[in-house]
Amino acid sequence: MLPAGALGRGCKNTRNISMHQKRSTINIGLIGAGVIGGGVIKLFDLQGQFFSEKQGLPLVLKRIVDTRTERFAELPVGKAICTAHAEDILSDPEIQIVIELVGGTTFARTFILSALAKKKHVVTANKALLAERGPEIFGAAEKAGVSVYFEAAVGGGMPVIKTIREALVGNDVRCVKTIINGTCNYILTQMTEKELPFAKVLAMAQKRGYAEADPTLDVEGGDAGHKVAIMASLLYDGYMPYDKVSREGITNITPEDISFARDLGYKIKLLGVIQRDSDGAPVEARVHPALLHNSHILASVSDVYNAVWLSGDAVGDMLLYGRGAGELPTASAVIGDVVDVARNIAAGTPDRVPMSFYSEDNMLPVKPLDDIMSRYYLRFTVLDRPGVLASISSVFAKYGISIAAVIQREHLSGQTLPVVFSTREVQEKQVREAISEIEKMDFIKNATQLIRIED
Amino acid sequence: MLPAGALGRGCKNTRNISMHQKRSTINIGLIGAGVIGGGVIKLFDLQGQFFSEKQGLPLVLKRIVDTRTERFAELPVGKAICTAHAEDILSDPEIQIVIELVGGTTFARTFILSALAKKKHVVTANKALLAERGPEIFGAAEKAGVSVYFEAAVGGGMPVIKTIREALVGNDVRCVKTIINGTCNYILTQMTEKELPFAKVLAMAQKRGYAEADPTLDVEGGDAGHKVAIMASLLYDGYMPYDKVSREGITNITPEDISFARDLGYKIKLLGVIQRDSDGAPVEARVHPALLHNSHILASVSDVYNAVWLSGDAVGDMLLYGRGAGELPTASAVIGDVVDVARNIAAGTPDRVPMSFYSEDNMLPVKPLDDIMSRYYLRFTVLDRPGVLASISSVFAKYGISIAAVIQREHLSGQTLPVVFSTREVQEKQVREAISEIEKMDFIKNATQLIRIED
Repeated sequence: MLPAGALGRGCKNTRNISMHQKRSTINIGLIGAGVIGGGVIKLFDLQGQFFSEKQGLPLVLKRIVDTRTERFAELPVGKAICTAHAEDILSDPEIQIVIELVGGTTFARTFILSALAKKKHVVTANKALLAERGPEIFGAAEKAGVSVYFEAAVGGGMPVIKTIREALVGNDVRCVKTIINGTCNYILTQMTEKELPFAKVLAMAQKRGYAEADPTLDVEGGDAGHKVAIMASLLYDGYMPYDKVSREGITNITPEDISFARDLGYKIKLLGVIQRDSDGAPVEARVHPALLHNSHILASVSDVYNAVWLSGDAVGDMLLYGRGAGELPTASAVIGDVVDVARNIAAGTPDRVPMSFYSEDNMLPVKPLDDIMSRYYLRFTVLDRPGVLASISSVFAKYGISIAAVIQREHLSGQTLPVVFSTREVQEKQVREAISEIEKMDFIKNATQLIRIED
Repeated sequence: MLPAGALGRGCKNTRNISMHQKRSTINIGLIGAGVIGGGVIKLFDLQGQFFSEKQGLPLVLKRIVDTRTERFAELPVGKAICTAHAEDILSDPEIQIVIELVGGTTFARTFILSALAKKKHVVTANKALLAERGPEIFGAAEKAGVSVYFEAAVGGGMPVIKTIREALVGNDVRCVKTIINGTCNYILTQMTEKELPFAKVLAMAQKRGYAEADPTLDVEGGDAGHKVAIMASLLYDGYMPYDKVSREGITNITPEDISFARDLGYKIKLLGVIQRDSDGAPVEARVHPALLHNSHILASVSDVYNAVWLSGDAVGDMLLYGRGAGELPTASAVIGDVVDVARNIAAGTPDRVPMSFYSEDNMLPVKPLDDIMSRYYLRFTVLDRPGVLASISSVFAKYGISIAAVIQREHLSGQTLPVVFSTREVQEKQVREAISEIEKMDFIKNATQLIRIED
């Protein structure tokens, strides 16, 4: 995503720092030399001397493991350090930090657990593993007296994890709203700008490398769900397992919805929401498309960019914005973590930022989706005949749903047509029950579209 | 700036963490119980138990010093820990961390140096002291084997320092653009929205507490200059003294400039710019009003909000946005630092993030303003007579200045009138010389307005 040649730096000014000179070499093993792994190796190549001479941290990338051995020729490292065998990292007692960039929850899990058992620190970008198996991983790290760092798991190069775990430690963060999946944000931005349907834009995104061949994990909200699970756990000092995060993707969003949203003054984004009303209260953790008012700062986050907006009781409103994925932004986060861990090692402090709250016996209470309060965009597909609006609005009244706006556009008579409502804030259960009652009426022709409105 | 009662939290879930239980108490002394000091004391009151039980850091606010002893009655602490004598902190060997919130470069300097000499760690919000006397302060800390943390000095609760020093350590950051003074941003926002002159809006800002009785340090760019000096030093691993940062304030910005900028599609902001072309190259460090295109993300940063936009060769574009000042946002940064330092103390690692590059014998080379490349907004005040445009544009041509846009509005004849040009990118020296030549012509009636355009 950066222009070629963007990394054409020379070596940084170097100046020996007397107090750090005595530190001994810290050896690193990297497994998974794919896109992000390649970026990490590039940054090491550029920065190695800087870390050693300026930061007093003599970091050495000692071993690179990948089964796709044909990749080794492209890397700016000697072939001698490349191998196809994970065991070459695990069995090397000199390797103190392991960078895991394989992904997934099977091999990566056993590999990380083996590395931790051998008292190696781990730096990983593996959001799925931490969201689904975090307690096992962090528990093993605590037992071994080593640490697992994971800045690259959420928000690419943006310091989301560091900001939550360290900078905002004096805050009670009551609410987070985040655009945290670049693929979905790119697709929705293109659908909005080009007025094209989802399938067409997805194909474009796949062509440009912004969506995987199998895009399910992104477009169905799974990837964002992993990140929301991790953030919720860190924010509220307990464990929010991935399967407790409610998730809806963007595959059902139509150009028609985007157009109605525009008329109402909103953009549609895939949003992660994390919030709770008070200490110990059930936590909302959800991922779904949402209407964001054009005046909301998140509405202007476009294309592959990500952003995390949060509201802390001390810090007030804050936003992090940047590239949430890609080779070098993610590699930037990995390097930041490696330097953090190396500083810990140099100082003999593996457990500097404790993670022991992240455990199965410290589950966060979860607020069911039925209980949340929100505003709603509802698009009914109805037959064009008298009494429809009266019927719908009387059901709304029965469930205490207050209407903020209605759009019914002029159309050729005798066909089905969309009628769009935006509601005032109301409990989701009421809206679900109202829809269910309205959908029993014979003028309703298709399933109703429900999208939450986040102000 | 937060609603009253926003801090109505109970105690966080507490869960003892076995591995941390053995840590001993870390005592803290705070000097300066003004607005920010009061915020810090409030957060301690709310968070103390959390730090102790959850983070394994038994932090105790042992001593509060302020000569304005009448303030003590309002603080949520026992009177016994409050005193008017700085010596009560300095002479207490149990106090390991000192929070300095007095400000200024006289008493604060001697106090901090005394504290460091007694091997106490320092947390400070004092941007002036670090920008003007950083090498002395950091040198004394290194000599004593303790650390100085200063997140609160730049950008309130936004983790600007942590992001630069830790998260982006793998990056070469080539460019930073920042709105870093809330007072100026509030004034310019109000001037833009209400079409009022500077003096009137300044008076409003003073009334609302957004500007000091003596606003010089804010409106003349000094405060932003302090922050830019600190950021430049951290970004490029050398010392950028405050007096090398070129500074222009906002007192000369008129509603007319704002109106012309609007016509051209821009907003006027007080901007800090830090950049260099390559490693070791001279560094641009400047604070001045600038035209920002409406499509630039910084153009939408309004009122008292601050933002730091940066471009790293690995991370790409990134933005931090939030409240850059105020009681609780700044207190949030102080608490984050105290916890960081406490984690260092608990782990026995004072020099975790080295600062020894920040010294007089490691000055950054500075690029003179004459050498910078920029686009320019120029407003000439001219007599209404034939040949004026021809004369000005022929001087532009002579100096190689290419015109991007011209605005001359219709007006009553026979008077002076403004003629506005925006230029393409050109060296500042050429523009200065062209203006100097044009101003010798007898149709020029007032000094020319020059504002840089940052795209």
